[in-house]
Amino acid sequence: MSKCLMESIVELELPQGNPIKIKSVAVEHYKVPLAEVLSDAKHGDHTYFELIVSRITCQNGVEGVGYTYTGGSGGSAIYSLLVDEIKPMLVGRDATQILAIWEEIYWRLHYVGRGGLVSFAQSAVDIALWDIRCKLLGQPLWKVAGGLSNKTRCYAGGIDLNFSQEKLLSNIQGYLDAGFNAVKIKVGKDNIKEDIARVRAVRELIGKDTTFMVDANYSMTKEKAIRFANAIEDQNITWFEEPTLPDDYQGYADIAQAISIPLAMGENLHTIHEFTYAVQQAKLGFLQPDASNIGGITGWLNVASLANAHNLPVCSHGMQELHVSLMSSQPNAGYLEVHSFPIDQYTTQPLAMENGYALAPDIEGTGVVFVDELLRGHLAKKS
Amino acid sequence: MSKCLMESIVELELPQGNPIKIKSVAVEHYKVPLAEVLSDAKHGDHTYFELIVSRITCQNGVEGVGYTYTGGSGGSAIYSLLVDEIKPMLVGRDATQILAIWEEIYWRLHYVGRGGLVSFAQSAVDIALWDIRCKLLGQPLWKVAGGLSNKTRCYAGGIDLNFSQEKLLSNIQGYLDAGFNAVKIKVGKDNIKEDIARVRAVRELIGKDTTFMVDANYSMTKEKAIRFANAIEDQNITWFEEPTLPDDYQGYADIAQAISIPLAMGENLHTIHEFTYAVQQAKLGFLQPDASNIGGITGWLNVASLANAHNLPVCSHGMQELHVSLMSSQPNAGYLEVHSFPIDQYTTQPLAMENGYALAPDIEGTGVVFVDELLRGHLAKKS
Ligand SMILES: [Mg+2]
Ligand SMILES: [Mg+2]
Repeated sequence: MSKCLMESIVELELPQGNPIKIKSVAVEHYKVPLAEVLSDAKHGDHTYFELIVSRITCQNGVEGVGYTYTGGSGGSAIYSLLVDEIKPMLVGRDATQILAIWEEIYWRLHYVGRGGLVSFAQSAVDIALWDIRCKLLGQPLWKVAGGLSNKTRCYAGGIDLNFSQEKLLSNIQGYLDAGFNAVKIKVGKDNIKEDIARVRAVRELIGKDTTFMVDANYSMTKEKAIRFANAIEDQNITWFEEPTLPDDYQGYADIAQAISIPLAMGENLHTIHEFTYAVQQAKLGFLQPDASNIGGITGWLNVASLANAHNLPVCSHGMQELHVSLMSSQPNAGYLEVHSFPIDQYTTQPLAMENGYALAPDIEGTGVVFVDELLRGHLAKKS
Repeated sequence: MSKCLMESIVELELPQGNPIKIKSVAVEHYKVPLAEVLSDAKHGDHTYFELIVSRITCQNGVEGVGYTYTGGSGGSAIYSLLVDEIKPMLVGRDATQILAIWEEIYWRLHYVGRGGLVSFAQSAVDIALWDIRCKLLGQPLWKVAGGLSNKTRCYAGGIDLNFSQEKLLSNIQGYLDAGFNAVKIKVGKDNIKEDIARVRAVRELIGKDTTFMVDANYSMTKEKAIRFANAIEDQNITWFEEPTLPDDYQGYADIAQAISIPLAMGENLHTIHEFTYAVQQAKLGFLQPDASNIGGITGWLNVASLANAHNLPVCSHGMQELHVSLMSSQPNAGYLEVHSFPIDQYTTQPLAMENGYALAPDIEGTGVVFVDELLRGHLAKKS
């Protein structure tokens, strides 16, 4: 392991002399249909997801591909931020100056930014620049980002609140058949008795050795969350994700003190400040940053370090095809989410698994190479 | 006063029977040049501001005008959010159901929202709906929003960090000549000795009875902010605005405990959650919500109530032509900022003052009626 790290550090010294100037930036906005309607407690039905891809080409011919995604809303505005605001900041800049570019985007858009939608656009750029960095180094992302390992524990994250209990169980069986030894289901039915019954049915199906998490998508009051968690205390639940509003850090702490299941959140936190407050106040057991909305790989690694400094595991949300390399690279990796938005199926390297572990791609760059033929039909806009 | 309130309450019962359905939504994006270059410590030079206007027309012919603004970045993405995401939610809805529409926008865009850029777009819609509400009631905004008074204390907010000390003083003299008895200057020079000299020079010019505030646009470290504030302790400064990062609530508290000048912030807080944390943790003396980025009039009034509940004065940031009515309406009004972005000059009712007070327009609606001929030449995009 330490050899890989040393190699990376040595390699990172390499770029010298002339800057690697950015020649052009192209942006694409896709609306990708889902195979079936997926629902959670707060966002309702998903029929498609949005994928916004940024392609940064350097004068030396190296191309970096970055991207972000949404659950169906906001993609046009992210596209606009990339084309109208951020592209003019990039052309002519040295692509290897990732942090300098990150800071410039953050502060130039701070008044309308400070997290929120701007973080999504910034992420798409940052990921493309890391792709370029890795390609210049001739290394895969898992090595450049830290290099601790090239595999990581993972779980199947269902978006299944609208499924009947019968369909829920057959869906979970599908995950087990595919080789998962960890699964997550949505909760947040109007009547928690239904949630409790679904949790018990799933635990009975998967047996006592399969890792099992639940996710309420911040749909519960504190009182309801506490009542629910205590009712499933005997079900060996690894984490209870987003019981209540992500903004209510103190509310999380109140819940954590009243239950025995660890809490998890992160997919809705978009700045290091928000994660800092979450770590200081919310008494979380797991942090779940998403590189698509926390400022890219730079932002995700910052949260991973914060988690490590507080002796917390770092996990991920969505975009498994990218996070697999980041999670693998870190000493405090928890579980990679294999999300129900199958972005990886539109790349040359759909997520590979072995003995319940997800394997990081070993190709130069982030390992995420989109297959144009698969996406073309879903293009909404292109710069 | 209580008569006005009673009238408002009675009138608010009036809309009955058929819903007031929204027929169409039109959006305009303007880039309005400033008369001269204005600078602050964190955003650098401003040469223009962006104005994004939403016009909501009801089937009964009533039109509501809402808007938001930026310091120069993000307007295109706000335009996209309004046209691509929010407009489809509005057409056919009952325009009088302001809170229901507010909640729908907030939650449908929550994943990419939770403050940030989405708050700006939401504000433009909310203000238009309040314009319709006031017109249906046949009342001016200051009455509908609370009705406590139709005038409010105000101050001239300079954006003047790039001005030489000589020009700074002549600019301030211009404010005094225009009838202001309260002024604010920017601070945040690299060397605080320069800031200290400017503060002393301005105080000497304005005399001891003029209200005087300073604004660092979160450019300082805690240590620098404390050193600066203690060096101007004898200058009778009413507030020290945004000494450091708005995200660092605890940092504000640390500064507040080490100095004697009250702290102020709000222009960068975009949800009631952020204001709640600020009130609970940051030890502020003044809250400064901006209806253009806190979710419109609905959002601004929520913060005003929060401030009142904590015995804090509520102030405003920017868009004086609208805030004058909101500030006037509230029992805990502090000082209205008369901002250096002169949006009011593009309306039929530029801000009116009397004895140092700003006067709320007495026309039906929000009182903000744009003059097409003045804006037309600055149009960037139109739906
Ligand atoms: Mg989740
Ligand atoms: Mg300010």
